[in-house]
Amino acid sequence: MLGRLYESQNCSASRALELVGERWSLLILRDAMFGGLTRFSQFQKSLGVATNVLSKRLEDFVADGLMERRQEPAEQAEYVLTRKGLELLPTIVALTEWGDKWVRPGPIEYKSRSGQPVEMQIRGKNSGTKFDVADVVAVLR
Amino acid sequence: MLGRLYESQNCSASRALELVGERWSLLILRDAMFGGLTRFSQFQKSLGVATNVLSKRLEDFVADGLMERRQEPAEQAEYVLTRKGLELLPTIVALTEWGDKWVRPGPIEYKSRSGQPVEMQIRGKNSGTKFDVADVVAVLR
Repeated sequence: MLGRLYESQNCSASRALELVGERWSLLILRDAMFGGLTRFSQFQKSLGVATNVLSKRLEDFVADGLMERRQEPAEQAEYVLTRKGLELLPTIVALTEWGDKWVRPGPIEYKSRSGQPVEMQIRGKNSGTKFDVADVVAVLR
Repeated sequence: MLGRLYESQNCSASRALELVGERWSLLILRDAMFGGLTRFSQFQKSLGVATNVLSKRLEDFVADGLMERRQEPAEQAEYVLTRKGLELLPTIVALTEWGDKWVRPGPIEYKSRSGQPVEMQIRGKNSGTKFDVADVVAVLR
C-alpha cells in the first residue's frame, strides 16, 4: 500500500507499514477486531471514510491475507479477519494504551474473555522478566 | 497531523494515529529510539525522506511533546525523544514482531540492556497471566 517508498527500509516495521500504514487501515482493523464488523456498510457507517478509500483498503487486506472475503448468495460480502490480521491486535492495543496515557483517556478497556483487564508488557522471551521501555535495545541478529 | 479526519473517532488509537499515523512518523521514531539518531541530517540519510516532509514531522513531534529540540551554539539542532515519544516503543516492537512473522524476518532483534531477548506479551494487569490475541475483547469503561 505505502509501497515502494518504504521498501528500501530493511526492517520488519517498515514492511508492516507497507501493509497497514495507510490512513484508516488500523481503524478498519480495530473495528473488525473489537466491533465484530464484517460488512462494507458497517465499516463505512462506523468510520465515515470515503467509499472508494474503504473499498481499496478492504481489497488490499484480502490481497495481503489480512482478511478473507466471504459471500453467501444474495447477501452482502463479509470481510473476516484472518489470523494474520488478528495478530495486529498487540499493535493496536499498544497504540491505544499510549493514546490513553499521553493524549487523553478513551472509552475502551481491553479485557480477557474471562473478564481480566489486560495490557501489553515487554517481557523476556525465556525468563518472563518484565522490562521498561528504557531497558530495550535493538541489535542485529 | 492526520488531524480532523480522525477526530470523530472517539478512541485513543485514533487519537494516537493523529500524532504518529502519517507516513514516515513511526520510522523516524524507530531511528530515534534504536539508532540513537538525533540530527536532521542523520534522519534524512537513514530514511531518504524528502527534506520538507522530515522537517514537518520533526517540528510536529516537538510541538506534540514527543521530541525535545536542543541546540548548542554553532551546532546543528538535536531532536531527542521525550518519555512520551519513547513510550511508543511497544507499538513499534509489536509492529516489528508482526512483520517478522507475517511479512518476512527482518535483521533486528530486540533485547534488554542485559542481553535477554524480549517480546511484547498480552498479560493480565493484576494476575500477570499471559493471553493470546484471540482471548482479548474491548469493553466500554
